[in-house]
Amino acid sequence: MKPSLTLLKIGGNVIDRPETLTGVLGAFAGLQTRKVLVHGGGKSAGRMMLRLGIQPKMIDGRRITDRATLDVVTMVYAGLINKNIVAGLQRFACNAIGLSGADANVVPAVKRPVKETDYGYVGDLTPENIGADTLERLLELGLTPVLSPITHDGRGTLLNTNADTVASAVAIALCRHYEIQLLFCFEKNGVLRDPSDDASAIALIDEALFSRYKADGTVSAGMIPKLDNAFDALRNGVAEVRICSPAGLTTSGGTCIRLKHDSPSVQHP
Amino acid sequence: MKPSLTLLKIGGNVIDRPETLTGVLGAFAGLQTRKVLVHGGGKSAGRMMLRLGIQPKMIDGRRITDRATLDVVTMVYAGLINKNIVAGLQRFACNAIGLSGADANVVPAVKRPVKETDYGYVGDLTPENIGADTLERLLELGLTPVLSPITHDGRGTLLNTNADTVASAVAIALCRHYEIQLLFCFEKNGVLRDPSDDASAIALIDEALFSRYKADGTVSAGMIPKLDNAFDALRNGVAEVRICSPAGLTTSGGTCIRLKHDSPSVQHP
Repeated sequence: MKPSLTLLKIGGNVIDRPETLTGVLGAFAGLQTRKVLVHGGGKSAGRMMLRLGIQPKMIDGRRITDRATLDVVTMVYAGLINKNIVAGLQRFACNAIGLSGADANVVPAVKRPVKETDYGYVGDLTPENIGADTLERLLELGLTPVLSPITHDGRGTLLNTNADTVASAVAIALCRHYEIQLLFCFEKNGVLRDPSDDASAIALIDEALFSRYKADGTVSAGMIPKLDNAFDALRNGVAEVRICSPAGLTTSGGTCIRLKHDSPSVQHP
Repeated sequence: MKPSLTLLKIGGNVIDRPETLTGVLGAFAGLQTRKVLVHGGGKSAGRMMLRLGIQPKMIDGRRITDRATLDVVTMVYAGLINKNIVAGLQRFACNAIGLSGADANVVPAVKRPVKETDYGYVGDLTPENIGADTLERLLELGLTPVLSPITHDGRGTLLNTNADTVASAVAIALCRHYEIQLLFCFEKNGVLRDPSDDASAIALIDEALFSRYKADGTVSAGMIPKLDNAFDALRNGVAEVRICSPAGLTTSGGTCIRLKHDSPSVQHP
């Protein structure tokens, strides 16, 4: 039987609020499984760009990563946030090691090809290219990898990648070695029926329900790619996916994602 | 016999000029020994502080690391510079792994006690506390650690440490496992007799000459702590120390530092 591994992705206000972050890191440090943490950047990169007088470039509501933006996300995600998370975990006696995708080549990427839109320095991932063996060796040294969503093209250029996508790709790549529980942790209690009511979290979403919720508008905007990443992980061998708030980390609350309603919560592919 | 390891410290204009940096990384990647790279920050942190409107705080010509300064050096050293160096080495097929002192707890530090001056978030090192066993395990996985001079106190706080001091302390700590060659690489050809003449590099400095050069002013200012770190490394088992320009990396040029003029260049403690 493969050993268990918890892959926790944190983002949004969980990163922006120091006391919330400290609570999450303490709970994560206490987990008795092997662990990997993937973090996004919250709103801090946008704030830093504002302070530096860099105008965010958007096309169709999506951010374009030009050279100046790449430098800021590298500083903020791979530097300020990653190192403060690592120091925060060390405080809880969790021997964390902060990595960008360039470090030990753990998350190589390909610069997104230009079609209608040039997204700039954005990296697309292929789970087969993730450095799963290197991550496994670090884990078996007793280390806890903490991944920032900065990747690289192997030719000297850093790239910006969506943190949910990094989490999902790394989870899929590590399935060979581990039984993976993938948790997407953010400020809400899960996928909410009513965005204004934090008590309205949907307990379970399967693919059929996901289609229905997309059609009736229950699930929209940023939640759709998050759920796409979740189903992608399940289809590729990840045993369990949950979307939850920091409280859900230890209570198994939040929204459980399954391929089928009656499929077991832990699958053995 | 212990395996050889080259510990290269780069700083100053070597980091600030992209084409110089690329040349150094290419030469470093080509070295056939085990390798560790330690980098400072050049002038980039000062420039970033200026852009962010943060006034550098100095007492007696020495920089004070307040909270705002700590955040900037963490972003710039552990983020922007460290990750670009790692991506640059990956380009040359050198499997680099960028680390701050908090990562895998490789360089724990103690916040400098306040005596006459409060230096703020500055970390002092003890070579015995360096995570030499962890660094050795990473090296034996075929990885090349790239260390930024950001350290931590083990209680959740990052600290700023002089990069020459990090290089010297890590070199001393790794003596147990490796035969160490420590290279301090910067924009000059070595320790110069005449600072305005790059052809005036002193070929060899031992402790007696160092005392004489300090007394007659040949060696002054920032070169004194650099040489103190060099002699400290030699006294604690480092086999060879050299101060050189990027060209000296492959030609064994620059200034060779020895405890005694007639001591062998490689010592076996």
